[in-house]
Amino acid sequence: MSKGCRCGGGKPLDLSEYIRAIPDFPKPGILFRDITPLLKSPEAFREAVRRLAEPFRSAGINIVAAAEARGFLFAAPVALQLGVGVTPIRKPGKLPWKTISWTYQLEYGTDTLQMHADAIAPGDRVLVIDDVLATGGTVEACCRMIEQAGGLVAGCAFLAELRALGGRNRLQSYPLVSLIQYD
Amino acid sequence: MSKGCRCGGGKPLDLSEYIRAIPDFPKPGILFRDITPLLKSPEAFREAVRRLAEPFRSAGINIVAAAEARGFLFAAPVALQLGVGVTPIRKPGKLPWKTISWTYQLEYGTDTLQMHADAIAPGDRVLVIDDVLATGGTVEACCRMIEQAGGLVAGCAFLAELRALGGRNRLQSYPLVSLIQYD
Repeated sequence: MSKGCRCGGGKPLDLSEYIRAIPDFPKPGILFRDITPLLKSPEAFREAVRRLAEPFRSAGINIVAAAEARGFLFAAPVALQLGVGVTPIRKPGKLPWKTISWTYQLEYGTDTLQMHADAIAPGDRVLVIDDVLATGGTVEACCRMIEQAGGLVAGCAFLAELRALGGRNRLQSYPLVSLIQYD
Repeated sequence: MSKGCRCGGGKPLDLSEYIRAIPDFPKPGILFRDITPLLKSPEAFREAVRRLAEPFRSAGINIVAAAEARGFLFAAPVALQLGVGVTPIRKPGKLPWKTISWTYQLEYGTDTLQMHADAIAPGDRVLVIDDVLATGGTVEACCRMIEQAGGLVAGCAFLAELRALGGRNRLQSYPLVSLIQYD
């Protein structure tokens, strides 16, 4: 049995078994991937964190970044596994110190994210973490803001990827890892 | 040097050195305790997570719960240290499955939190985590909701406690740990 495998009989843990599909959330026609069963399972959660960190162990990561809120649940333990800290990227008005902001386009309207001005130092190698990669708008905004601060996005890692939404195309410049893929 | 001490010379790490005081945030007269320097320091973040988990290692905890968003950053790694999962408690409309809700009083108006109906099983021993204990309203709401689901709040743990705001008085029924106290 390979090191780190948490399952019996040498069969790797199938993380997709811990994701619940919820039809019509948050609106009709959307099939939402609910990650809370995975978070609730110590074996699956631990294994997901291990697999998110693993590809970046030799990537010289200085810090992990994540946008609120679900991304925090994976970013914090991945950072500790990599021996680095974590920087939260938040909705406007949540961070108390000097911030830099990034506004990006949504299907209808715009959204803005903020990061502390001292969150990323020039030359930092940053791993961006989120639970689900959908259209990629949020993560792309995080990457641009990190680059604006002088950081280098050394990778993006996701528990799950909704391939039909094409988020991967917006992140082509970065090494990208997703543990579960949905068509 | 005691096991787990990450500092040189046997002097325990002073976590309060990693908290930044920000005057007049979010409004005039409030001195905000900014935890982002601690999150950014691998040594301080790791040590904070270790100290939050330590008092509960023999408490038979089944699951860690936390309200969004900053609480997630500590709850997730504490859960992994204790070998359990984590359940997110969220603002209304964020959780996709069947939820239970709890509405509580604020200084002006009310606020509501939600938890998945299957997040806590009857008899679960739950550790509630947050970054800062202020008035205690949010954490008390979490505890009541956990109890409504049949769980037992086996403890509440905070990185920092603002004693003047009296949150501890609302949580007298539970073992309470805070790593840094401010008057």
